[in-house]
Amino acid sequence: MMETTLRTLYGPVAEDLILVEDLLESVKRVDLAPLRRMLEHALEARGKRLRPALVLLAGTFGNYDLNRLVPLGAAIELLHTASLVHDDVVDGATSRRGRPTANSLFDNALTVLLGDYMFANAAEMVTRTGSLHVTRLFALTLMKMTSGELDQDAAAFDVGKDIQHYLWRIGGKTASLFANATEGGAELAGCEPSWVEALRSYGFDLGMAFQIVDDVLDFTGDEETLGKPVGSDLREGNLTLPTLLYLERAPRDNPVTKFVRARRNREALLAEAIAAIRATDAIERARDMAREYAARARASLRVLPATPARESLEAITEYVLERRS
Amino acid sequence: MMETTLRTLYGPVAEDLILVEDLLESVKRVDLAPLRRMLEHALEARGKRLRPALVLLAGTFGNYDLNRLVPLGAAIELLHTASLVHDDVVDGATSRRGRPTANSLFDNALTVLLGDYMFANAAEMVTRTGSLHVTRLFALTLMKMTSGELDQDAAAFDVGKDIQHYLWRIGGKTASLFANATEGGAELAGCEPSWVEALRSYGFDLGMAFQIVDDVLDFTGDEETLGKPVGSDLREGNLTLPTLLYLERAPRDNPVTKFVRARRNREALLAEAIAAIRATDAIERARDMAREYAARARASLRVLPATPARESLEAITEYVLERRS
Repeated sequence: MMETTLRTLYGPVAEDLILVEDLLESVKRVDLAPLRRMLEHALEARGKRLRPALVLLAGTFGNYDLNRLVPLGAAIELLHTASLVHDDVVDGATSRRGRPTANSLFDNALTVLLGDYMFANAAEMVTRTGSLHVTRLFALTLMKMTSGELDQDAAAFDVGKDIQHYLWRIGGKTASLFANATEGGAELAGCEPSWVEALRSYGFDLGMAFQIVDDVLDFTGDEETLGKPVGSDLREGNLTLPTLLYLERAPRDNPVTKFVRARRNREALLAEAIAAIRATDAIERARDMAREYAARARASLRVLPATPARESLEAITEYVLERRS
Repeated sequence: MMETTLRTLYGPVAEDLILVEDLLESVKRVDLAPLRRMLEHALEARGKRLRPALVLLAGTFGNYDLNRLVPLGAAIELLHTASLVHDDVVDGATSRRGRPTANSLFDNALTVLLGDYMFANAAEMVTRTGSLHVTRLFALTLMKMTSGELDQDAAAFDVGKDIQHYLWRIGGKTASLFANATEGGAELAGCEPSWVEALRSYGFDLGMAFQIVDDVLDFTGDEETLGKPVGSDLREGNLTLPTLLYLERAPRDNPVTKFVRARRNREALLAEAIAAIRATDAIERARDMAREYAARARASLRVLPATPARESLEAITEYVLERRS
């Protein structure tokens, strides 16, 4: 059920991820038919299950209790999926990874409620960990994620925001959930505070690298692999790291600011803006920043014993940098 | 800060509700400016604070610990407000209680995220009760509320649904949160199981009466007091108790089914449908059902000692029946 690369990557916890899968499967079993149909659609596309893998890997550094770790893994994956469901409503996206989005199939109103239900179910699931502390962490994470998303939407097309602002935003919308996965896993396993902190820090920096790579792929990927058109972020006014790095060195009047201000001829100007960004070293400098975050993530692991799980966590930092979709 | 009627109604806990108010006030204090503006708008209209009052009143039957009860009261009010924010997006409502809705001021995308943030903050707040059990109850309640809302949307204009179905739906969308308020308050106060169950049952039946009265007011109220046009439910295809009671005895071809099937001339047909429902005893029979639920709620209180708090809870069942807005 999992491709070989991921099975190797997730090493010691790969087999146990089937338990997360089973728990996610159980989410679909509801009586209300329209809700069931929507949940089946939303949960059909199996992602890489990277976040649940991080929960379990972190959990190996203490008391590896699957009765507590599996609910957290499933809750985090469900929260992630719910946030994508709402993001697609917010962005008016019609496809994600080559599949029609929930909002394109079921209308916005029902899709908002579907996301709400999934958030609630994720919250219910995290309480099954038996830890009020981890449940609280989870709620705080959702506050950060939503703040980041909200900022992205509110600051759309604003060329006045700088890289610090961008890093704050992706810290909220993406890295906070990665950090929750590793911190929560370590916490549930009863790791000592310095290990919990090392794993939290690893998760956060990994999440930063992950999102930067995502934002780079929006410029360098192809539509087929990405499952969405190239340049989607810039089209929606989401000025990500490559754009911001480009703007730092670009003259006042450049293809990007022209596109941002344009009311007509937007597609042609967008293509020019993308070409301009690609023609500089902005993409490479963005990749460098992703590499730095990945290196920081690896460095955080040094306090932990050299186990197969630590090797997996190290390998994941490479995988995140090299991924193409 | 609270009108005299409510102050009298909430009796022994009226003064303590200011602590709930303070906690809700603290929710607005966020750095992110667009989020702060939206939270200020969403939390500006102070409701009757009926649900927090129920939490505190239930809490008086055990160890009345405001450090635990106040966070639950604030969390439930915040959850309620968040659900209204999303409902208004889902219904495309432009005003609520005479004020512009968040979605009419800030666009749908930002409003979806505002609601998500408020849900997350409510979940965070409920963890401050220190009770994993109550936190779990809270998550389960949100699942029921969303299922009820989702069903309402999915079953819009469906004249094939019966009264049982309607009762299930309002049990989820409304009564479950009232039940959560009283059960949670009793649970936090450490009441014995039979008292917790009595208070849960009271809350649920009170919530049922509350929603039925709400649905009746949509037919009998006036636009100014309601803050929305009369017949809003039927216009949106939400077939509530008066409509369903009317349909039970109406001929096959009647003004309501005509309106439901209509594609043109809808406002005129809606007016005819409302007039037809008003002309029968459907409204009065719906009120009778609300009275029955209120009586059941009062009956549940009999196992509790006769305290001023119990008198308040009894008086609230009358207040809910008599309210005009």
